[in-house]
Amino acid sequence: MSRNIVLVDPLPRTLDLIMKPDIRRRLENLGKLVISEDRQMPAEQVDALLPETVLIFGQTDMPRERLDRAPKLKAIINVESNFMPNIDYQACVERGIWVITPASAFASPVAEAALGMALDLARGITRADRDFRAGTEHYGLAGNDGVFRFAGAPVGIVGFGDLGRQLRDLIRPFKNTVRVFDPWLPNEIIERLDCIPCGLDETLSESQVVFVFASVTSENEGFIGRREFRLMKPGAAFLLMSRAAVVDFPAMLETVKSGHIIAATDVFPEEPVAGDDPVRGLPGLLLSAHRTGGTRDAFYELGTMAVADAELIMKGLPPQLCRRADPATASRLRSKPVAVS
Amino acid sequence: MSRNIVLVDPLPRTLDLIMKPDIRRRLENLGKLVISEDRQMPAEQVDALLPETVLIFGQTDMPRERLDRAPKLKAIINVESNFMPNIDYQACVERGIWVITPASAFASPVAEAALGMALDLARGITRADRDFRAGTEHYGLAGNDGVFRFAGAPVGIVGFGDLGRQLRDLIRPFKNTVRVFDPWLPNEIIERLDCIPCGLDETLSESQVVFVFASVTSENEGFIGRREFRLMKPGAAFLLMSRAAVVDFPAMLETVKSGHIIAATDVFPEEPVAGDDPVRGLPGLLLSAHRTGGTRDAFYELGTMAVADAELIMKGLPPQLCRRADPATASRLRSKPVAVS
Amino acid sequence: MSRNIVLVDPLPRTLDLIMKPDIRRRLENLGKLVISEDRQMPAEQVDALLPETVLIFGQTDMPRERLDRAPKLKAIINVESNFMPNIDYQACVERGIWVITPASAFASPVAEAALGMALDLARGITRADRDFRAGTEHYGLAGNDGVFRFAGAPVGIVGFGDLGRQLRDLIRPFKNTVRVFDPWLPNEIIERLDCIPCGLDETLSESQVVFVFASVTSENEGFIGRREFRLMKPGAAFLLMSRAAVVDFPAMLETVKSGHIIAATDVFPEEPVAGDDPVRGLPGLLLSAHRTGGTRDAFYELGTMAVADAELIMKGLPPQLCRRADPATASRLRSKPVAVS
Amino acid sequence: MSRNIVLVDPLPRTLDLIMKPDIRRRLENLGKLVISEDRQMPAEQVDALLPETVLIFGQTDMPRERLDRAPKLKAIINVESNFMPNIDYQACVERGIWVITPASAFASPVAEAALGMALDLARGITRADRDFRAGTEHYGLAGNDGVFRFAGAPVGIVGFGDLGRQLRDLIRPFKNTVRVFDPWLPNEIIERLDCIPCGLDETLSESQVVFVFASVTSENEGFIGRREFRLMKPGAAFLLMSRAAVVDFPAMLETVKSGHIIAATDVFPEEPVAGDDPVRGLPGLLLSAHRTGGTRDAFYELGTMAVADAELIMKGLPPQLCRRADPATASRLRSKPVAVS
Repeated sequence: MSRNIVLVDPLPRTLDLIMKPDIRRRLENLGKLVISEDRQMPAEQVDALLPETVLIFGQTDMPRERLDRAPKLKAIINVESNFMPNIDYQACVERGIWVITPASAFASPVAEAALGMALDLARGITRADRDFRAGTEHYGLAGNDGVFRFAGAPVGIVGFGDLGRQLRDLIRPFKNTVRVFDPWLPNEIIERLDCIPCGLDETLSESQVVFVFASVTSENEGFIGRREFRLMKPGAAFLLMSRAAVVDFPAMLETVKSGHIIAATDVFPEEPVAGDDPVRGLPGLLLSAHRTGGTRDAFYELGTMAVADAELIMKGLPPQLCRRADPATASRLRSKPVAVS
Repeated sequence: MSRNIVLVDPLPRTLDLIMKPDIRRRLENLGKLVISEDRQMPAEQVDALLPETVLIFGQTDMPRERLDRAPKLKAIINVESNFMPNIDYQACVERGIWVITPASAFASPVAEAALGMALDLARGITRADRDFRAGTEHYGLAGNDGVFRFAGAPVGIVGFGDLGRQLRDLIRPFKNTVRVFDPWLPNEIIERLDCIPCGLDETLSESQVVFVFASVTSENEGFIGRREFRLMKPGAAFLLMSRAAVVDFPAMLETVKSGHIIAATDVFPEEPVAGDDPVRGLPGLLLSAHRTGGTRDAFYELGTMAVADAELIMKGLPPQLCRRADPATASRLRSKPVAVS
Repeated sequence: MSRNIVLVDPLPRTLDLIMKPDIRRRLENLGKLVISEDRQMPAEQVDALLPETVLIFGQTDMPRERLDRAPKLKAIINVESNFMPNIDYQACVERGIWVITPASAFASPVAEAALGMALDLARGITRADRDFRAGTEHYGLAGNDGVFRFAGAPVGIVGFGDLGRQLRDLIRPFKNTVRVFDPWLPNEIIERLDCIPCGLDETLSESQVVFVFASVTSENEGFIGRREFRLMKPGAAFLLMSRAAVVDFPAMLETVKSGHIIAATDVFPEEPVAGDDPVRGLPGLLLSAHRTGGTRDAFYELGTMAVADAELIMKGLPPQLCRRADPATASRLRSKPVAVS
Repeated sequence: MSRNIVLVDPLPRTLDLIMKPDIRRRLENLGKLVISEDRQMPAEQVDALLPETVLIFGQTDMPRERLDRAPKLKAIINVESNFMPNIDYQACVERGIWVITPASAFASPVAEAALGMALDLARGITRADRDFRAGTEHYGLAGNDGVFRFAGAPVGIVGFGDLGRQLRDLIRPFKNTVRVFDPWLPNEIIERLDCIPCGLDETLSESQVVFVFASVTSENEGFIGRREFRLMKPGAAFLLMSRAAVVDFPAMLETVKSGHIIAATDVFPEEPVAGDDPVRGLPGLLLSAHRTGGTRDAFYELGTMAVADAELIMKGLPPQLCRRADPATASRLRSKPVAVS
């Protein structure tokens, strides 16, 4: 008595977090859902389900020997969004099992927030509100000391994946010259999007606003450090939108404190940040508690992308929306998965 | 011994504020500059210069009898940016004297700041920074309570002149449905820019973000009042970017205080705002001290536009950059000129 | 017994040509229509109507003495689209009578056709179809001899009014460098639309595709002549979209015949062109019988714009869609009005 | 004595056709080039090179047993652009050998030509030139009989890969409603590009202009036939830009002959077309000899993309520009490779 199992093991997500009822119904049409949401699915349950499982939604450990026992498996869909080393990617490739993640669901809200924070730094929006509340506001031109126009300002983007490209689209009306540093990309990709491929140093030194969207890999931890921050123009704005580990965080804070640059960050080396961390009092820093990507709509988009691609895969077609794990590169990524949504 | 005088009477501006050296040199090529910057040009000096004056840069009183004594006058270029009743507009028209103002120089910085403030309200940027500084921040999804995506949110624009149209251009990548209320415009203009012409009530009630760019006229003071604010969606954002007098300001504050809407304002009924004004402590209000338009680059743009059009006029060509005073409408405008830049 | 007359004297247009029923109804709401469509309205009829006339739709002679007898007249709306010397423009200005024309109704179809013809010249579309019909076609790369990509090719635009700007918008996705020659415009206007202001010689010599949209004035007849055509790059494309009189037409044909350039023209010195005119056999010339602007939708747009602005004017507001006649420049224009629509 | 071989077996291409000298030099930096351009590389030569080969540029047969003898092989780069069944795709996947093709190099010239041909059909450009040469032209409105505006016309796209998406980008300024039929794609992809996902029937029946970019697969030969052509609007335009086999070609010709639709085609069931084929005389058909993609720049782009991705692959990074062969879908494609470039 054959049946198709969809194994749902989504922690730290839950199905309700990532799917509205209509999307969940589309998922239910693909097979019988077996769900473990309050804890990771126990090994014995996974093992019992493997022979009938066609799809895995979640971050279940899938070494080669488990893949061997899942003859009907067509795809593993990571709904956390970071590929982890608990899957044998090469074995999946050999069996024609897709390993994919709808990580780009977060790109749109992060890019929107990144532009908001860049406009905030450029035009002094939060700072002016703070001054007004303190009774120290200045009117008109006097209130625009240290301010610059985002429109036309040279922009640098470090890391030009989904996030960087969405930001690039959002800023088109501002007509910035855009330099991009991304060592994983050929120049041709960067130029097609009307940007200038550059080295890191030039990207930092020539830009008035620098956005960092780079992922952490085994090779790039802390690659923007004291020397790099000093390359930036006086008064330039630095926005850290991806992972704290790509910068030397203390060097960043120190450069802000010195007044050389202003900055915004959505990420911190340890989260939550300690109550007495001096970062909380730094005037030139716009603070955001790892919240630019995790909007309600982004979680729903995550689930929608996952189900839409699962539908294609069940029809024998390649996925179109999720990112595929390339065995060679999946092993280089070093992002810490989130603990809670 | 004939010569061409350029009468420069720019208060509250100064030439250095609005012209970089290269632009000033272009102005000097049009005639001999006679400048009064520390005070309005005295009447006797104006009267003495009139016979040789070809251009007036400033807000000098120009009643019909003065125009009668200025046979060479080709243009009066208001560099404050609001047409005032101290000029006989009809007499200028009859004599073929252009009366123009480069007011749209301020449109670009205001539109940029308006988008920045809208993203701030939508995504809670300033609020989240304030919480972080207070040690009360929330991470991830929990930090996004009350937040909405600007992308895709229905937008309303009240007043669709230079400001509104620049904002419309800036938000194109966000793919909003945009409703426009502007009783001075035919539907055709609004539709060409991919917006929906609407009445005021529908613009307010159907939009998640409402931008007000309307000028004050003799007919529209306080036209957005208690009733209109109540039409807005719960949690919607209201941005007042033009003049305080177009809204019932206390009604706006009260609606924010009630939690029904969030808001941002760049303008106030009296500026500077009193030190103890309770507006300074209102949580749902983003405060800006009449500073969104008056950036340094905007003042330079003002001067550049003024000189470029003066050059055309001196060649017998119509101006292309400045707005022309139409006698009928100039008399309806009620904006208070600024006292200082 | 007062009433408002709308005097309709639209030859060579007719009301049915330029207004669908719903637009005509809007016009009827503005006053009582008195129409002369089969011939120009007789002088005695015009004279009888003047005291009650509020709007003139058409090209009626309006010297000062007639204006003196039309105290209620608010606007003269030229529906042919070229301002002619049969109106006392200065007298209109003095009386606050708008003289306007919805000429830009033709800009959109002309720009669309101009792009179509430019793609045709660049990619050899008509030529390849001709070869195919003659049995002399070549396949693949061999069929692309002499062809160039429009995408990325340097473009020159001569005359940057409504037509040139609409074309500029249409070609944005092709990412061309665009040079513009327009002596009536300040550089600032040209640069805002991401084009490079240039002299005529540079515009011609640096461009792979040159579009001519310039109007004829008293000063520019034949300003693109033998010398100018020789400045163009070998194999470049020249598109004449406005009026034959702006070029030395025989020089253009000769340059095409020599093989130095390819060209397209929608206009001819005399129309209709003689049956035996050798222009009909020229291989490198794409021929169009003054038909790029006069599409059915353009005529309806003409009427819609005219009525929408008339509605504003009757409410005391300035027109927004039509072009205004500036007394100084109206007198410089030299386009021959069309004889038939 | 180890060395890296780059096996170049590019027929029907040649290296000079697809690479300018600077790109070829970049290729030479990746290994020692062994080239067979005048004929397919002989089996014995291939076999001798396999042990040292790191990259294959071309369409060499690569069954599993050859892959077994190529331990250093990292990528097979098809420079013809259609994946063929002469490679064991599954074996490549298992070994981590990329099989890719820069087919999208042709997308840009095809999309440009498709727009040019659509504007031609809509505005009657070629037809009007033909009439003018025959002395039967009509001027103005009379010359626009049967013409429609492309701007604003409802558009249908059948097949939404690289070609369809590039066309979608090019037509953005025309503000068309765009319906897309592509059964391999989720609705989400189509909607992100501001198009409406539709079934084939609705795409055909609701559009004024239909573009066909679909590839031939084992499942879709002749899927647009007599019944489907009859669904189209009277006077609508049909453009066949991909492969003749996706339509019932005689049914297409017959529908054009009947006057129900007008059409353009770049492809034919047999090429070259017979000299006496009646297709050559059909008035409503715009003829193009399989030449829209094969422009000189497209071949250079092909080589550039191939080399750029080869560089990434040699650095251990995934390719970014070329399309990857998915084993499941590669086997469904049925395009005949071209015989000559």
